[in-house]
Amino acid sequence: MKKRLGIFGSTGYIGEQTLSVIDKYRDIFEVEVLTGFENFEKLISQAKKFLPNVVVIGNSDYYEIVSDALQPLDIKVYAGAEAIEQVAGMDTLDMVVMAISGFSAFKPLKTALENKTAIALANKECMVSAGEWIRKKALSTGTIVIPVDSEPSAIFQCLVGESTKDIDKIILTASGGPFLRLSESQFKNITPEMALRHPKWKMGKKISVDSASMMNKGLEAIEARWFFGLKPDQIEVLIHEEAIVHSLVQFSDGSMKAQLSITDMRIPIQYALGYPERLAGKTSGLDLAKMGSLHFEAPDIKKFRNLALAFEALKKGGNMPCILNAANEIAVQEFLQKNIEFIQIPLVVENCMKTISFISNPSLDELLECDRKGRKKAAEFIKTLI
Amino acid sequence: MKKRLGIFGSTGYIGEQTLSVIDKYRDIFEVEVLTGFENFEKLISQAKKFLPNVVVIGNSDYYEIVSDALQPLDIKVYAGAEAIEQVAGMDTLDMVVMAISGFSAFKPLKTALENKTAIALANKECMVSAGEWIRKKALSTGTIVIPVDSEPSAIFQCLVGESTKDIDKIILTASGGPFLRLSESQFKNITPEMALRHPKWKMGKKISVDSASMMNKGLEAIEARWFFGLKPDQIEVLIHEEAIVHSLVQFSDGSMKAQLSITDMRIPIQYALGYPERLAGKTSGLDLAKMGSLHFEAPDIKKFRNLALAFEALKKGGNMPCILNAANEIAVQEFLQKNIEFIQIPLVVENCMKTISFISNPSLDELLECDRKGRKKAAEFIKTLI
Repeated sequence: MKKRLGIFGSTGYIGEQTLSVIDKYRDIFEVEVLTGFENFEKLISQAKKFLPNVVVIGNSDYYEIVSDALQPLDIKVYAGAEAIEQVAGMDTLDMVVMAISGFSAFKPLKTALENKTAIALANKECMVSAGEWIRKKALSTGTIVIPVDSEPSAIFQCLVGESTKDIDKIILTASGGPFLRLSESQFKNITPEMALRHPKWKMGKKISVDSASMMNKGLEAIEARWFFGLKPDQIEVLIHEEAIVHSLVQFSDGSMKAQLSITDMRIPIQYALGYPERLAGKTSGLDLAKMGSLHFEAPDIKKFRNLALAFEALKKGGNMPCILNAANEIAVQEFLQKNIEFIQIPLVVENCMKTISFISNPSLDELLECDRKGRKKAAEFIKTLI
Repeated sequence: MKKRLGIFGSTGYIGEQTLSVIDKYRDIFEVEVLTGFENFEKLISQAKKFLPNVVVIGNSDYYEIVSDALQPLDIKVYAGAEAIEQVAGMDTLDMVVMAISGFSAFKPLKTALENKTAIALANKECMVSAGEWIRKKALSTGTIVIPVDSEPSAIFQCLVGESTKDIDKIILTASGGPFLRLSESQFKNITPEMALRHPKWKMGKKISVDSASMMNKGLEAIEARWFFGLKPDQIEVLIHEEAIVHSLVQFSDGSMKAQLSITDMRIPIQYALGYPERLAGKTSGLDLAKMGSLHFEAPDIKKFRNLALAFEALKKGGNMPCILNAANEIAVQEFLQKNIEFIQIPLVVENCMKTISFISNPSLDELLECDRKGRKKAAEFIKTLI
């Protein structure tokens, strides 16, 4: 029996990489569902290649085009956010690959969790905003949630066969992004084009900007808390420019484990899809002698203000990470549209963190409300900046 | 119930470190047996501190001194190699820590294996000479054999929760010892005093010389084959001068795992004693940001001729590793007594490998005979050199 996969957000960077892994292991995997939001052309061509049972296009405007293209292949086509949410609950799915970016992935993720379908989670905003709820739900339903991103995948791999109680701390490595060596004063000249050119990883736009501002590492820290059931002070960040050591775990006995590989997203994706098996071959190994050396340094949280804010939210807990994430999503969007400066992103985030009421034990409804409020507040604050 | 330990070779460096670990976890461990060979004073003082039930002094000349000193404490005292072999089979032992150096550890090790007592193995010569036999015996009796040495312990730790079939290769790191930066022409001036000053690890004499000649890494490669059930071409050596990454495993999917810690033998010893639990605290962690960088390079097997010979023996298999080990033990002994030069050690080893008959599938008796032959041949060849 092949493992039947639903790729949610298949037209994005992670979605495409996931399909390229699946393509190499057609004997193990088959595609049951593909969903995309805007890029109907790519969605159609993916569907023609992988022949899923169901395709959903998020933006209903493109429904007819997609439907017309795929009807001859006997592929069911739906449209709209609600359809995405519903197909995530299909019983024919063995695994949901959640590669939709942003908190909008939460509803289909929730559906998959409630249906006890194993989840390969590439999206980090959901874990950041509603991580405690997701962790509890996964534990109570016995649903496996495996990280896809390279850093939490590294931690996950270092922890197989180990006991969570033996974790002293985890250390998330960060390449430092394109602006690691820029002085603080040069930060004011950063354009979206500069922020999108990541030196190590090819990624989607949102995550590329987050990597450049190091908010990405802050989100990973919050996410890691709930992925691995840690306390905030058990999570550290370490700059490692080569992006070869993807993260480390320090155990209570002073021993440390690290996961390493070449910088290729297909490795953690393949691990998540194949878990608990490792799928042999088809990616190249790492030649440390050829590399010669690996470097490590402490992050500069004065320069990377977003990282400091994320750790503040991590420590504060409650709805604070949700506020941080919502504000950041809007700020990044506005930065990409050149409505605000790169250095204004943390101003937006900080403003929302300071002005939205803190709730220490938010319900799921309160978090969803807080997400809306955060976005609204961020948009309002941005208007005062323009 | 405390774990009852027998420390075989307690007066050597690893033995002492083992007792210092036990001393920190008196609530978990108790010492049932202590054995030493010559150093009766240290053995007596260890026995007074840890109050084992049984003490064995290898050299019978010291029996009365030890016996007189420990009788008032109601400690049973025996003497001689045969007694060491016999106490290894005591049913009151939960674990045997085999810290005797050289192939002379084989008989007590065999006894412990046949009695299905868990073994923490610090000795590598036994695995080198009779690894296949040990592996088969451990598997057929279901006896756990956990490595104590930092490199195989690193591999062992990287493999918990993983499947042996997913191993692509293992990479044993080597600090390179005191002569890493010496030119080949400078090798002829190496004295025992120089060879005993290891830059990273404080160790016993035999292993210090083996580290300086890199035979130690060759022995570890052969040992790793049987510890982890690998093929010879799955084992590599990588120079890593800082001795922080203790070894790595590359998996079939291109992902790699490494174990790291500060350079402190008590960490792998503690892991072996506590396995499958990690014992919390009491050693310091590692600060990678403070370290700044880690370096890796390929070994120079032309300069370190012993390493090339060991890999030759590893690939050839059969009785070849046993010959290599026996010849090396004698050569190191003669080097320490200043009877031969450092650069003559590989000449002795190579001569024995070339002149003693190869047996592809040796029985245990043939191996024991081969060990004797190797020592004899090495001693004879050394006479022609002096």
